[in-house]
Amino acid sequence: MNRFELMKGLHRGGGDKMLLLVFDGIGGLPNEPGGKTELETAHTPHLDALAKNGICGLHVPCGAGITPGSGPAHLGIFGYDPFEYNIGRGVLEALGIDFPLQNGDLAIRINFCTIDQDGLVTDRRAGRIATELSTKLCEKLRQIKLPGVELFVEPVKEHRAAAVLRGPGLYGGLNDSDPQETGKAPLEVKASNPDAQKAADLANAFAAQAREILKDDQPANMTLLRGIDRFETLPHFTDVFGVRAAAIATYPMYRGLSRLVGMDVLKTGDTVESEIETLREHVDEYDFFYVHVKKTDSYGEDGNFDAKVHILDEADPLLPQFTEMGFGVIAVTGDHSTPAVMKSHSWHPVPTLLHSACCRPDDVSVFGERACNHGGLGVFPAVDLVPMILANGHWLQKYGA
Amino acid sequence: MNRFELMKGLHRGGGDKMLLLVFDGIGGLPNEPGGKTELETAHTPHLDALAKNGICGLHVPCGAGITPGSGPAHLGIFGYDPFEYNIGRGVLEALGIDFPLQNGDLAIRINFCTIDQDGLVTDRRAGRIATELSTKLCEKLRQIKLPGVELFVEPVKEHRAAAVLRGPGLYGGLNDSDPQETGKAPLEVKASNPDAQKAADLANAFAAQAREILKDDQPANMTLLRGIDRFETLPHFTDVFGVRAAAIATYPMYRGLSRLVGMDVLKTGDTVESEIETLREHVDEYDFFYVHVKKTDSYGEDGNFDAKVHILDEADPLLPQFTEMGFGVIAVTGDHSTPAVMKSHSWHPVPTLLHSACCRPDDVSVFGERACNHGGLGVFPAVDLVPMILANGHWLQKYGA
Repeated sequence: MNRFELMKGLHRGGGDKMLLLVFDGIGGLPNEPGGKTELETAHTPHLDALAKNGICGLHVPCGAGITPGSGPAHLGIFGYDPFEYNIGRGVLEALGIDFPLQNGDLAIRINFCTIDQDGLVTDRRAGRIATELSTKLCEKLRQIKLPGVELFVEPVKEHRAAAVLRGPGLYGGLNDSDPQETGKAPLEVKASNPDAQKAADLANAFAAQAREILKDDQPANMTLLRGIDRFETLPHFTDVFGVRAAAIATYPMYRGLSRLVGMDVLKTGDTVESEIETLREHVDEYDFFYVHVKKTDSYGEDGNFDAKVHILDEADPLLPQFTEMGFGVIAVTGDHSTPAVMKSHSWHPVPTLLHSACCRPDDVSVFGERACNHGGLGVFPAVDLVPMILANGHWLQKYGA
Repeated sequence: MNRFELMKGLHRGGGDKMLLLVFDGIGGLPNEPGGKTELETAHTPHLDALAKNGICGLHVPCGAGITPGSGPAHLGIFGYDPFEYNIGRGVLEALGIDFPLQNGDLAIRINFCTIDQDGLVTDRRAGRIATELSTKLCEKLRQIKLPGVELFVEPVKEHRAAAVLRGPGLYGGLNDSDPQETGKAPLEVKASNPDAQKAADLANAFAAQAREILKDDQPANMTLLRGIDRFETLPHFTDVFGVRAAAIATYPMYRGLSRLVGMDVLKTGDTVESEIETLREHVDEYDFFYVHVKKTDSYGEDGNFDAKVHILDEADPLLPQFTEMGFGVIAVTGDHSTPAVMKSHSWHPVPTLLHSACCRPDDVSVFGERACNHGGLGVFPAVDLVPMILANGHWLQKYGA
């Protein structure tokens, strides 16, 4: 049976409040052989207490050996099969700036970059230009005329922007024009299937006109197009799982992804403290809250083991503020692992704890990778997490008689 | 998404060298209640050291409770779904003697056997006749005329031979003519589907003519036909996984299976030492090496617990020769379990260790069934092993953005 059809048939309403607290890229590796991971190193007595009284395990974001991007990784912990629902980064980026995407829109992530007189990329991020400058460059790019489609160009942050093409017959299946390294020319966008040819032609036309328009701008004199994909609404979280869901995230990407699955995105500030404040203000309005902490991933990507540890050290004392809000179910996990020693996302399973009055306790008494190996949740697919949260919150009725 | 399509989209090239060391039938059971398994009994300090510094678990070859033959078991650890790619033993046998199978060939494994005057089987292996004798018998069988197809008959080893029928319209879905016990007549080959009827008729015609031709030979006066199946090329390992792969195996079956998935089969001798020598000679030429040790299974099938232990005792001191060759990833496992106490293959999950610089260490410090139960790999499907090896060798790029 289709998983979502199954879920839809099990709604019963009226359960406990649920919190899914996501430390982006929380999973890690020891910095040296025989050492501890970031999470194992951090001083986290409150997380450990939740682990001790709850049930632990590790989720596999996408599948054995598969390192997920942020999109697929988040779909997984939201209960959506990341292979069935494959979302381009352009779509996420546009959703993350509150762009009102419509079904069938083609969304493109833009990096302003620098090319030399031979057309070779010398800086893929144009020196990370200020958002004010890229805002002006986006205004210029709105001059671009593409036949038969409406064009929107919006700044995101620093060198990043988003373009949306709206019109009939725009399908995904396109490569990035980003050559991924300097010293190479931007790539031509090619269609991997015949349906995508129109979109490929328009993307290349966009890039050619952008080059002409920006030719006298320094350092941002060209665009790289990335994550080009068609937007299609996903099944709505509330329809599928039967609960009112809200998202609290400081970064646009994660707000965008939450909106994609139909969560209400709550306005918040730049810090975990502001996220907690937002949660407190709205805690009575929803059944399920997703709260995202970004910096564990950021420091992992930077290779900064100690700073990643420190984020966890700092977050742990805030835990009582979450637990005191009366959640019947608290799940703490990450979307994927980002070991500082690898300076990148990785395939490693992600430590997960689930705390409720009716979770079956196991022998795990600290929250860490090695400890979670011995937990009652075992090593499980990420898409199983939301159904387990719902069950622990008494939101699912019996299957069959 | 199709697993192989996913894998093809993740190639990035340029990773570390990888070794998959397979002790056939390594998994076992205690000889008596409360005892240790063969692997737990063996003195394996080098394997234990790899386990301690690596990550461990147990793979399930085909599915819960399913005892695999050598074919499906090997497909699994090569990353091929053993239910999607169901290979008859006849096909493997023919590949194992370097027979140049073509797409659409029907391959049959032959056992020379002894029947009495009533046509009842008295010895399913004709006293394990010498290879020289079965070579002569195969020459006789080449007289067999089958309408519309070309026939090849080749000796394999002792009482075993292979036949290949080449012609249009030959499909699998046939039972063995081997009654599996003495005192019964060879079975008629029947088609389980209409497409297979032609092949069934030809197989029965082969058996009838063979009986006539061999009627005066003793003890091998009849053939039993087994593992009759059509040969179809499988997706090529290099195309699917993006690495150059070579196989080193002393037994024809495993060379055949390696060739079936497109591995280069390297010429080697009869011992593990010769396999190591072959590996050393070719280590620079490939990315992924599969090395097969047969005798753990053979002694398991014989019910010889102590001899199976001894094979592991003897192999362990050779481990440093493998590890000193500079592999970035070393995986040690079996294709299935062969508990000596059962004298047969079994369904039990198979101890597995994975060692690399970026595997996440767990608390396992010895390589054995009970210890692996606590490992970070958990209990996982065999087909997940190759993707995990590739991930640890940095051969896979990120999925999605």
